[in-house]
Amino acid sequence: MAITTGIVGAAGFAGIELVRLVLRHPDLELSIVTSNELAGTAVASEYPGFVGATDLAFASHDDPALDTCELVFLAVPHTAALGMAPRLVAGGSTVIDLSADFRLKDPVVYEQWYAARHTAVELLEKATFGLPELFPDDLVRAAAAHKMGEGTLVACAGCYPTATSLAAAPAVRAGWVVPGGVVVADAVSGVTGAGKKASARTHFCFADENLEAYGVATHRHTPEIEQILELDGRLVFTPHLAPLNRGLLSTVNVPLASDAPLDAASIIEHYRAFYGDSAFVHVLGVGEMPKTSAVAGTNNAHIGLAVNERARMLIAVCAIDNLGKGAAGQAVQCANAVLRLPESAGFDRAAVPV
Amino acid sequence: MAITTGIVGAAGFAGIELVRLVLRHPDLELSIVTSNELAGTAVASEYPGFVGATDLAFASHDDPALDTCELVFLAVPHTAALGMAPRLVAGGSTVIDLSADFRLKDPVVYEQWYAARHTAVELLEKATFGLPELFPDDLVRAAAAHKMGEGTLVACAGCYPTATSLAAAPAVRAGWVVPGGVVVADAVSGVTGAGKKASARTHFCFADENLEAYGVATHRHTPEIEQILELDGRLVFTPHLAPLNRGLLSTVNVPLASDAPLDAASIIEHYRAFYGDSAFVHVLGVGEMPKTSAVAGTNNAHIGLAVNERARMLIAVCAIDNLGKGAAGQAVQCANAVLRLPESAGFDRAAVPV
Amino acid sequence: MAITTGIVGAAGFAGIELVRLVLRHPDLELSIVTSNELAGTAVASEYPGFVGATDLAFASHDDPALDTCELVFLAVPHTAALGMAPRLVAGGSTVIDLSADFRLKDPVVYEQWYAARHTAVELLEKATFGLPELFPDDLVRAAAAHKMGEGTLVACAGCYPTATSLAAAPAVRAGWVVPGGVVVADAVSGVTGAGKKASARTHFCFADENLEAYGVATHRHTPEIEQILELDGRLVFTPHLAPLNRGLLSTVNVPLASDAPLDAASIIEHYRAFYGDSAFVHVLGVGEMPKTSAVAGTNNAHIGLAVNERARMLIAVCAIDNLGKGAAGQAVQCANAVLRLPESAGFDRAAVPV
Amino acid sequence: MAITTGIVGAAGFAGIELVRLVLRHPDLELSIVTSNELAGTAVASEYPGFVGATDLAFASHDDPALDTCELVFLAVPHTAALGMAPRLVAGGSTVIDLSADFRLKDPVVYEQWYAARHTAVELLEKATFGLPELFPDDLVRAAAAHKMGEGTLVACAGCYPTATSLAAAPAVRAGWVVPGGVVVADAVSGVTGAGKKASARTHFCFADENLEAYGVATHRHTPEIEQILELDGRLVFTPHLAPLNRGLLSTVNVPLASDAPLDAASIIEHYRAFYGDSAFVHVLGVGEMPKTSAVAGTNNAHIGLAVNERARMLIAVCAIDNLGKGAAGQAVQCANAVLRLPESAGFDRAAVPV
Repeated sequence: MAITTGIVGAAGFAGIELVRLVLRHPDLELSIVTSNELAGTAVASEYPGFVGATDLAFASHDDPALDTCELVFLAVPHTAALGMAPRLVAGGSTVIDLSADFRLKDPVVYEQWYAARHTAVELLEKATFGLPELFPDDLVRAAAAHKMGEGTLVACAGCYPTATSLAAAPAVRAGWVVPGGVVVADAVSGVTGAGKKASARTHFCFADENLEAYGVATHRHTPEIEQILELDGRLVFTPHLAPLNRGLLSTVNVPLASDAPLDAASIIEHYRAFYGDSAFVHVLGVGEMPKTSAVAGTNNAHIGLAVNERARMLIAVCAIDNLGKGAAGQAVQCANAVLRLPESAGFDRAAVPV
Repeated sequence: MAITTGIVGAAGFAGIELVRLVLRHPDLELSIVTSNELAGTAVASEYPGFVGATDLAFASHDDPALDTCELVFLAVPHTAALGMAPRLVAGGSTVIDLSADFRLKDPVVYEQWYAARHTAVELLEKATFGLPELFPDDLVRAAAAHKMGEGTLVACAGCYPTATSLAAAPAVRAGWVVPGGVVVADAVSGVTGAGKKASARTHFCFADENLEAYGVATHRHTPEIEQILELDGRLVFTPHLAPLNRGLLSTVNVPLASDAPLDAASIIEHYRAFYGDSAFVHVLGVGEMPKTSAVAGTNNAHIGLAVNERARMLIAVCAIDNLGKGAAGQAVQCANAVLRLPESAGFDRAAVPV
Repeated sequence: MAITTGIVGAAGFAGIELVRLVLRHPDLELSIVTSNELAGTAVASEYPGFVGATDLAFASHDDPALDTCELVFLAVPHTAALGMAPRLVAGGSTVIDLSADFRLKDPVVYEQWYAARHTAVELLEKATFGLPELFPDDLVRAAAAHKMGEGTLVACAGCYPTATSLAAAPAVRAGWVVPGGVVVADAVSGVTGAGKKASARTHFCFADENLEAYGVATHRHTPEIEQILELDGRLVFTPHLAPLNRGLLSTVNVPLASDAPLDAASIIEHYRAFYGDSAFVHVLGVGEMPKTSAVAGTNNAHIGLAVNERARMLIAVCAIDNLGKGAAGQAVQCANAVLRLPESAGFDRAAVPV
Repeated sequence: MAITTGIVGAAGFAGIELVRLVLRHPDLELSIVTSNELAGTAVASEYPGFVGATDLAFASHDDPALDTCELVFLAVPHTAALGMAPRLVAGGSTVIDLSADFRLKDPVVYEQWYAARHTAVELLEKATFGLPELFPDDLVRAAAAHKMGEGTLVACAGCYPTATSLAAAPAVRAGWVVPGGVVVADAVSGVTGAGKKASARTHFCFADENLEAYGVATHRHTPEIEQILELDGRLVFTPHLAPLNRGLLSTVNVPLASDAPLDAASIIEHYRAFYGDSAFVHVLGVGEMPKTSAVAGTNNAHIGLAVNERARMLIAVCAIDNLGKGAAGQAVQCANAVLRLPESAGFDRAAVPV
């Protein structure tokens, strides 16, 4: 029987991609989508790609139908989930949170970087971090709790942390980083990463034909990546914006210890073993580098690996769709895990080729 | 049981979109994909969007496995299908031809516009024209022939003819065109319409940030549109190129006779009745105009309608994905019709929303 | 001695392009640029392309320095110029108005299309229409008035009217249009044409990879084109949006009378004679069609011509930069004419090649 | 009197931008432009942005008119300049070489990275490296030699080396790099950087909506950057491709020594002092980061600076136009220096604003 599903904040870019994924998911039934700003508007009116595909209209966030959903996705700005999640979890729902509110384990760090008090520390302690390939056991525990009838919350990893960590983790966890070494991640995102709000940054005429760095040394995904990779204070992360819709490429420079391998072939073999069980993460061969266009619209991550031997540096490059594996796709993947559905349920395996 | 399927010319843009559609089609099994240029290359190596999705490699066009396919798509340049189709049809296959070789009913017209002799006139006479919403009976006949075990050939309509004719046909067939009146269609296509061949026209740096008309007064889709709409010598068709990948918008100006309706609401009602049975064609409401982004990656067509009352002109605008409803999608739709599969089998109903 | 110059509404897209053109103009000295919204902000802070090029900051619209300017450009929304222009003209300034307020000769037509009362009818009657290639004598008269010390107002033609009229005028004025015939203009613009205001329409993620028509049968440039070409009620004009910054292409379909020429070569010869004196309008050869990229950043217009003989239709295609010849460039060209400066003063002749 | 100028390889992207810059240069007169492939074709026919701006046609490389030029730009692939430059210099010309043939001081390094023998070692020893802000004295010496009537050769720095070195040099030369520290430069280029040749890489449909790294750990600009910054084996350089025409952004991560400053304000002050005399390099303020759109079409470089204090890393970001300061602009700047013309002669100071 289909699982009743709600999406809060469904009019934003991550939210609307969730709408698409849930609608095509064989085991989920989309009951309610909310947007306070667009309450009453048909989804297909705001996003005409849904003409003929759904008659749903946006409801407001406080619509009581949400409480009857077995599965709820929260695609809301940070601090908003703090107010919504505890009640939903207490009511027994499986809550998949795409906001930043439950990602950082330490509420002090949250308060430093997000300039807001964490008002749901109790739930934070029980929250599951949603990056399935790197923390599979956490999702197994959440699935067990769900099976016992408990409400659960999964805090999905952010887009930059996902790509950057997938690129670096197999090397970092193997102990290949030189002691005290700093990992440098330069990442580039398409403009959907800047959100739906119309602004100078997202104006076509300012984004088109332009490249820029932003949030340099201050981006809020920094502590999240440090937490995932256990690199306290040893990560330099610089995000950039480029003129495309979807796609995120993270180029991660990992300084290699003296006993780490230096040949790409061995490193690729190690990465492939590390991701052996994954349906979504694909490690490319020697001399191959990922393209974001090859993962757009999917939940896939492609990783390319090369070594600068003279500088003893591993260059690990990961491409994802920032709205797919970086947001809505990962959220559905986490839901599949908690609900014990097939990992690939609801996903296309191939990207649109061109 | 799955229908064994082959795609000839699978490395081109229409061909590779067919690969994607056939792989996800519940009733088709992709047995062979061919490309003389790339024979031996893995599909996922040339198009990395297929990494993890298929292990198929391109075979050459003369691979004998083709002859065992129940269903064969020909995504080849014009004149190439002339040589391949007769043998496949004679062998009992259902051939869905995306080339221009069997679209024009009159071989003399073909020879005028394509500067090539038509060497398969016998098959041309039996060929079915593939534009299901406008010529449904032809596909019913082809399905009946297929059921009798006969080979069949469907010549799918081209991208510009599809969008232009879907926009104009309900008005034209209602007899609304002023006697002797000329229909003006100005259409704009994304660059995938120019094909995979690297050239000055398809070079990023020449196509980016540029708009241009091409093939003015000489484009080969002109006689095809005239044939569909029965507008002998009374069509002016001008195609344009714009900097995007997928998408085709045709703005069709239909001069209205004195007894034709002039209010958009009535015209929309007529169009909706005309397309009432279609899963793919959607007629928008008063004041709404289609966006190509809302149909990208799908087999959908969106139509918007407005009237310039002073000039008594209907402006009918149709948006399709030139590789979807304009090529590979329409081909699969035609295959579904001939094989008596559900019309929507293999298709997503919603486009990627952003 | 340099002519003191002010730009009102300098922070918009047409305004800021004027800033660039005036700064590089050998005979003009930019004294003041205004923007109520950005008053106090440095130009180079809002538009970093001016870092190192000017230290000017935006002033407010009511800054008294404006009144001391010999030359004032108004790059303001319609109705705003109605309030500003009369005082400036009365003060003896040469006012070059880029708004729509003084373009339509008949205030009744203005009030119909712009839903606003025309409050400066006296000035409207004396205003000069600014489309130098088609109305050169008007500018000669304005120059004479200026020489006599009188204030003058030039109402520059809009972007779509400029491209469309340059394409059609030589044929229309030659009497080649079939009696009662309707001219169909389908035009495509880059997103700078939609202005600086951040909105769903100008959001990168909605404009990118999309084509659409807008303002169908209702666009306010329609009566202006009809006025220029004297085609009362016999023009169908449909604007479209495509994903590029600068560029406007108008494809104009002119139905030819029985005594009009049908061969492209003769028509091109006529057009070249018509534009013989122009520094900016270039008529391309047989088989050549214009590209907007070839005129971006310039004041040039390129025109290509072809004939559909069977339908007796001339297809005249004109490419301009909507911010150049379609706005700021034309404004400077008009200023040059009134001030008796060389026609090309301040302009580059070549576009950036790629 | 105007200086007679020739451009060899004028049909490529750097070459044609040189054509534009030389045509507008007040002191240079463009006598000859060559392209073996397009010999006989009018410049304005291949690049329609020059319609009305020049009547020149491409000549072949061996046209004797080249030998009479006082100034010759070589915009040819590597190894081609090896054969042309010695003769031209011997004839007394000032040769500005945009190829890689005379950039690397050590011919052994050249032969390693370019897989070709260096056949003009004598000239290499006398060649001037063309990156005026970092090596001004070399150009002073070249100017002195020119004044004595000697032929000279300037080997202009490449696009990535220019942006990367301008970002890093003030810190590196101040001794701020931690001993043994590795500098990590991740740079992104527009597609003009990939050249005019039509290929899969430059095909619109593969470049559009895509991000990728390329030449990872193998790009030929690596030894050039190491040479400029004297970072033997301590540079990791990864170039990326993004979907825009012009623009190059290099994000350079410089690990700071214990006695280096950590506050951005002090570092900016140091950089501004370092570049105090430059007309083209602009160091942005605290919290500001450069945009490539703000330098497109110019010879400007914008630099933004930030510090990650916990990781003791300086993040220096430089934006240039890869065809401007990264190629043709720098070449003209070098020519100006050798010929003792004003540094800014021929350049616009402002970029097109939007």
